[in-house]
Amino acid sequence: MFGRTHYCGEITEKSIGESVILKGWVQRRRDLGGLIFIDLRDRTGVVQIVFNPEVSKAALEVAEKVRNEYVVDVRGTVVARADGTINENLKTGKIEIVVSEVTIINEAKTPPFMIENNTEAAEDIRLKYRYLDLRRQEMFDVFKMRSIVTKTIRNFLDEEGYLDIETPILTKSTPEGARDYLVPSRVHPGEFFALPQSPQLFKQLLMVSGFDKYYQIARCFRDEDLRADRQPEFTQIDIEASFMSQDDIREMVERMMKQVMLATKGLEIQTPFPIMPYDEAMERYGSDKPDTRFGLELQNISKLVENSSFKVFSNAIAAGGQVKALVVKGSADQYSRKDIDGLGEFAARYGAKGLAWLKVESEGLKGPIGKFFTETDQSELCEFLSAEEGDLLLFAADSKKVVADSLGALRLKLGKDLGLINQNQYNFLWVTEWPLLEYGEEENRYYAAHHPFTMPAREDLDKLESDPGAVKAQAYDIVLNGYELGGGSLRIFERDIQEKMFNVLGFSKEEAKEQFGFLLEAFEYGTPPHGGIALGLDRIVMLLAGRNSLRDTIAFPKTASASDLLMKAPDEVSEAQLKELHLTVNAKAEKVL
Amino acid sequence: MFGRTHYCGEITEKSIGESVILKGWVQRRRDLGGLIFIDLRDRTGVVQIVFNPEVSKAALEVAEKVRNEYVVDVRGTVVARADGTINENLKTGKIEIVVSEVTIINEAKTPPFMIENNTEAAEDIRLKYRYLDLRRQEMFDVFKMRSIVTKTIRNFLDEEGYLDIETPILTKSTPEGARDYLVPSRVHPGEFFALPQSPQLFKQLLMVSGFDKYYQIARCFRDEDLRADRQPEFTQIDIEASFMSQDDIREMVERMMKQVMLATKGLEIQTPFPIMPYDEAMERYGSDKPDTRFGLELQNISKLVENSSFKVFSNAIAAGGQVKALVVKGSADQYSRKDIDGLGEFAARYGAKGLAWLKVESEGLKGPIGKFFTETDQSELCEFLSAEEGDLLLFAADSKKVVADSLGALRLKLGKDLGLINQNQYNFLWVTEWPLLEYGEEENRYYAAHHPFTMPAREDLDKLESDPGAVKAQAYDIVLNGYELGGGSLRIFERDIQEKMFNVLGFSKEEAKEQFGFLLEAFEYGTPPHGGIALGLDRIVMLLAGRNSLRDTIAFPKTASASDLLMKAPDEVSEAQLKELHLTVNAKAEKVL
Repeated sequence: MFGRTHYCGEITEKSIGESVILKGWVQRRRDLGGLIFIDLRDRTGVVQIVFNPEVSKAALEVAEKVRNEYVVDVRGTVVARADGTINENLKTGKIEIVVSEVTIINEAKTPPFMIENNTEAAEDIRLKYRYLDLRRQEMFDVFKMRSIVTKTIRNFLDEEGYLDIETPILTKSTPEGARDYLVPSRVHPGEFFALPQSPQLFKQLLMVSGFDKYYQIARCFRDEDLRADRQPEFTQIDIEASFMSQDDIREMVERMMKQVMLATKGLEIQTPFPIMPYDEAMERYGSDKPDTRFGLELQNISKLVENSSFKVFSNAIAAGGQVKALVVKGSADQYSRKDIDGLGEFAARYGAKGLAWLKVESEGLKGPIGKFFTETDQSELCEFLSAEEGDLLLFAADSKKVVADSLGALRLKLGKDLGLINQNQYNFLWVTEWPLLEYGEEENRYYAAHHPFTMPAREDLDKLESDPGAVKAQAYDIVLNGYELGGGSLRIFERDIQEKMFNVLGFSKEEAKEQFGFLLEAFEYGTPPHGGIALGLDRIVMLLAGRNSLRDTIAFPKTASASDLLMKAPDEVSEAQLKELHLTVNAKAEKVL
Repeated sequence: MFGRTHYCGEITEKSIGESVILKGWVQRRRDLGGLIFIDLRDRTGVVQIVFNPEVSKAALEVAEKVRNEYVVDVRGTVVARADGTINENLKTGKIEIVVSEVTIINEAKTPPFMIENNTEAAEDIRLKYRYLDLRRQEMFDVFKMRSIVTKTIRNFLDEEGYLDIETPILTKSTPEGARDYLVPSRVHPGEFFALPQSPQLFKQLLMVSGFDKYYQIARCFRDEDLRADRQPEFTQIDIEASFMSQDDIREMVERMMKQVMLATKGLEIQTPFPIMPYDEAMERYGSDKPDTRFGLELQNISKLVENSSFKVFSNAIAAGGQVKALVVKGSADQYSRKDIDGLGEFAARYGAKGLAWLKVESEGLKGPIGKFFTETDQSELCEFLSAEEGDLLLFAADSKKVVADSLGALRLKLGKDLGLINQNQYNFLWVTEWPLLEYGEEENRYYAAHHPFTMPAREDLDKLESDPGAVKAQAYDIVLNGYELGGGSLRIFERDIQEKMFNVLGFSKEEAKEQFGFLLEAFEYGTPPHGGIALGLDRIVMLLAGRNSLRDTIAFPKTASASDLLMKAPDEVSEAQLKELHLTVNAKAEKVL
């Protein structure tokens, strides 16, 4: 049974003449002219094995019983393929194995879908039979890449003196974040652990301990309503260091990502990465995570149209809003009125009440709102926008937020639709100078834009209580091709600033002490300045492996309703278990989806 | 604030004359003859810094305000210490830093205990102020060693082609193990996830997927009543491979541990490790994880005393039990009758009803039971036991289990008390040929000795249903110095054997399908033979770092009542949270300890 000499996909012409023992799965069987050919598969790929009655009649007889996905032990000799039968598309295409002996190790039923790349199987079937889905080479390749990413990161961080420290999974529920997963305690009736949304507080405490440089590839949990790109459990590359500046941390992350890109894509990327303040990103791209692989930037024409006779424009500005334009170069002819209506509907999903447009033609600006622009207006506008004949101009007029959201999304859509994006390009970017707080209309209070432990900009400290909305954070996000890979900040390390922060967030002194007393106390025993970052491993792998879903980067993911279709979790538990946990399930509860 | 040039503990004579910037904690301040000396500490150790008014009066004035555990930024020059002030016990003892500039970065209250090795602080104080406890060099050293262990293991396994794959933390509750921690689902009312006790089923499914070689340094969870050496969450080095024999797996683990011992202790250990069948371990050591660093083996004298006039002996054997002896060489004089009574009380904790004893003196065997032995009996016994004058003989007579438990424990105690153990020796051992099943008197049924997925010995397969207690498992434990480091086995990979196993364990067909249907189904789609092992990381670190408690190897451990004293977890949660989870806490529940 044992003693494999080679993996299937790794046998080359160098082994011609050698005896080999292979173990693998039957990918395909063909009977041809009294011979049987089998593509034998393992995680490294496929090799052709040949059963010839002149070599072994017994082996041929076994091969006749073999079906797809049978597991077999094969012994034979590597031979060169005959001219004309060489398969240049296959790594092992120049050789084949002439089999002298074969054993069926295990049989297989016909799988519910073919084990091949580009499967058309529905995702719920793929998830239910995940063990078969993972047999597909393209899936294995994702996990191989994932392990290369983590290995590269670990080696880099070890080398830099970062210590890999595990922090608890059973920890404490805290407010000011997403919803926690809770774990009832059997020993302490009515009390619960919470699964961590991040190791934030633990890593800060490790800095208080003088550990100086910490990292962890850490599992984190959020009980959120799931979207396509969220999972209840996800993995972050969690890093924290003492006595480092924002620049120090960013420079370290850049060197780390440089190694990751080299190890996974063979690409030498440029460092340092560009740095863009949050305000600039919103202004130019309508996004806090701009995809800078293409232009099509948002242009603010508010000044030009504040007195426009087109009331949609002038009224929006009068109400404190903005008017911005996208200049879609040379695309006027491509977009019919109906197409543009479609773009308007798309923009409406992001809150835009409408999408005004104009086409630059030889005779001037044409379109439903053309009449509102005098000839002077038109030439001023075209000059300002660098618009030329053949361009399509799209306008949004609304609050700053709606303009940014709708045109930002439209820009991405047009970038894709028009093929403006080079898929082989990897544009890293730092977005900095974030607002510290966001105002929540619902509860009429400020929320931490990042988390309550983020250090305000030193120069804004005096505004923390008087004008919280104006305070910038010492925070930075790392963006790749329009995706947020991660975010970090310097942290508050002085008790009085942390107390002010809790106060601004609406905590009473008692609440702050109840929830975060241990942290406030820790800050009194000699806490060093510290900061760090957390990067989403699943998303990094998704982008580098060119997948569209985080589910493809997680071996056993949950569905959009947070279910494991393979093992059927969550599931009911016994009354005895509930009793031990001092819990009763409320009757008539209904599914929340 | 930034720009550290050196870590404190790493400055040597090579840097004499250099300007340095250091960041660290004040370990100790001494004012001496107008100068101030501070031991400045960071994670690498301590360096002496000197404030001299002739160098900087301003710096001296700041230094006067400094107290223990203040965080400071120090700039100065490395100088050689004057003759007579050199500290040979300190790595940096030949130099000191003359300070030109110092800044207090953060102040510190007087800590609740001194930051020093060999603290006498009570453990609950150490846990409450864990961030201070972790400042002690000996604690940091444990975590440094832990990270060396994991790094060495990862590098080794990566090199061997094992892929690091993360498996879910939110998974399904299964019977046949310890108690699960449960996580209520918000989306699926009345349903629960369970935290995994091990990734066992996931790693087997990865083998079904053809991943071939898997590993994970995996967090696992057990809601057990805690003993000194258990934690609700613990970490295991989890490994699984396809198409490998028991020998293949053991040989791979031996090479891995060889590298770990070299990286952590600088020791070249001998491989292969000795292999001892379970029955032999129990017979010779009364333990399934024998400490083989010393002899003092259990000797079975049942044959010699089955007709003894000492009825305790002959009756025990007549009842199907045993009589075994420990020969404590040359220790007869050391143990008074009272001391031996103490040993008897110790043995009683393991179920022994008493401990018979004899001393070998020049005139023969002396002791309370001496009269039952004729001269012939005595010389036969001494010859059989190789007992000589001055030896103390201890006897237990009881069921096989009680004799093993009591004499096994007594052997370990005597080994320690008498200094028979070389603390610098590392004896690895494989214990093999385990029983597959254990009979549980309580429910009158068999339980899996390891877990229900362990492959029975091929030659015992026909006894699986007819004589389950006689079936051996293809399982192996790795033992170091009397501690079980981990255990593994080949797994069942054929549906019919797995179904028989569930049947023996008392599952109905429906129950088996309900709980493990996905596994039984997976086995039908071409499952390779596979096996693996799981090693306890926390315990490995504990042994290599020479600590006595697993809590010292976990950055933020739980107490014996599964509490986090630092963050105060578990804790109460809001009514709103409970409502979202469709749960009510039962009133009047009481603490379970």
